[in-house]
Amino acid sequence: MADEFVLVPARQARAVQVPSGGRFRVVDVEGGQVVDLFAFVAGDVGEYASAEHTRIWVNRLFPRVGEAFVTNRRRPILWFEQDDSPGVHDMLCAACDPTRYRLLGVDGWHPSCQENLQRVMAGLGHDRIEVPQPINLFMAVRVEPDGSFTWSPAPTTAGDGVVLRAELDCVVVASACPQDRNEINHYRPTPIGIQLLGSRPS
Amino acid sequence: MADEFVLVPARQARAVQVPSGGRFRVVDVEGGQVVDLFAFVAGDVGEYASAEHTRIWVNRLFPRVGEAFVTNRRRPILWFEQDDSPGVHDMLCAACDPTRYRLLGVDGWHPSCQENLQRVMAGLGHDRIEVPQPINLFMAVRVEPDGSFTWSPAPTTAGDGVVLRAELDCVVVASACPQDRNEINHYRPTPIGIQLLGSRPS
Repeated sequence: MADEFVLVPARQARAVQVPSGGRFRVVDVEGGQVVDLFAFVAGDVGEYASAEHTRIWVNRLFPRVGEAFVTNRRRPILWFEQDDSPGVHDMLCAACDPTRYRLLGVDGWHPSCQENLQRVMAGLGHDRIEVPQPINLFMAVRVEPDGSFTWSPAPTTAGDGVVLRAELDCVVVASACPQDRNEINHYRPTPIGIQLLGSRPS
Repeated sequence: MADEFVLVPARQARAVQVPSGGRFRVVDVEGGQVVDLFAFVAGDVGEYASAEHTRIWVNRLFPRVGEAFVTNRRRPILWFEQDDSPGVHDMLCAACDPTRYRLLGVDGWHPSCQENLQRVMAGLGHDRIEVPQPINLFMAVRVEPDGSFTWSPAPTTAGDGVVLRAELDCVVVASACPQDRNEINHYRPTPIGIQLLGSRPS
């Protein structure tokens, strides 16, 4: 049976339910696109993948393959199984939101990862959620020796992706970042995909 | 009139209400002590100083003097006015909590910045709060070129401090970090202080 593939249109988000042990691949369909990824515990969305707890868990800015993302209760929720991309990811920068675009000079409404997340979670019955620091896959924000950031376009090419395994039953949300006011998506937001790979290989 | 000085005993936390324009100095009383600092908007504790939004605001890991800490709604809440310390601070590492100490091998209860925060906020009538990523003053976590962390003891000496100015009416909580299972407090947690400096100098 073929793996289920959820296409996430440009500038939108989708949620998938992933049981503990389930594996999925987040794919950059056309290349050069950042994914804002979130994971909430299925039974209690007050527990979610937490950047600040994960950093302590792995003692670095971002996990390496073979390490875990943990929740705000310090429980592994996603296992970083494989990286078929240039390996450039971020976990320092908040999701874009309406205020971010207003500050960037946008006049009127602009889609954002925060609203994308809130909309898909509301569609699952979760009207009020905390918006966590996302796992920004393929996002190129380099930390310089003086602590300042240098932003670059996502270095991915079409079909690049990462494979993650759920360590808890969880709701995973992937947002195809709509940022078109700086270089991170090459000023051209494109679709992403979530490929559900089924259970852990034996 | 002398400035009001709130002594925060070792391993404990205290809250102060600071009006917009109010200035305060966070003091390391004996030296070598990390402070977990939090700031919530007085009228709505769902809005608070946010590390991930501040990093984008200042485009670096931690603000410099003359820059702002902003909320999860991207509004300046604290202005970094003065730094009379070695200038080593962290905004990457979650507050310590009971699970952290359990994972470090502690048998039984151990005080933590998370419980300290929750207790003082509950005392102000806020029973359920989100626990934000703290502003870890005087905490020495260096990011190496490969993204890994190197932890060191707080380099402060007695009387070192930072001056912050409230940009919004806010509740500020300072926790004298009880961490005694790694080097950050020299394995010897000590008191801190909050010196309320009154209104903005004209």
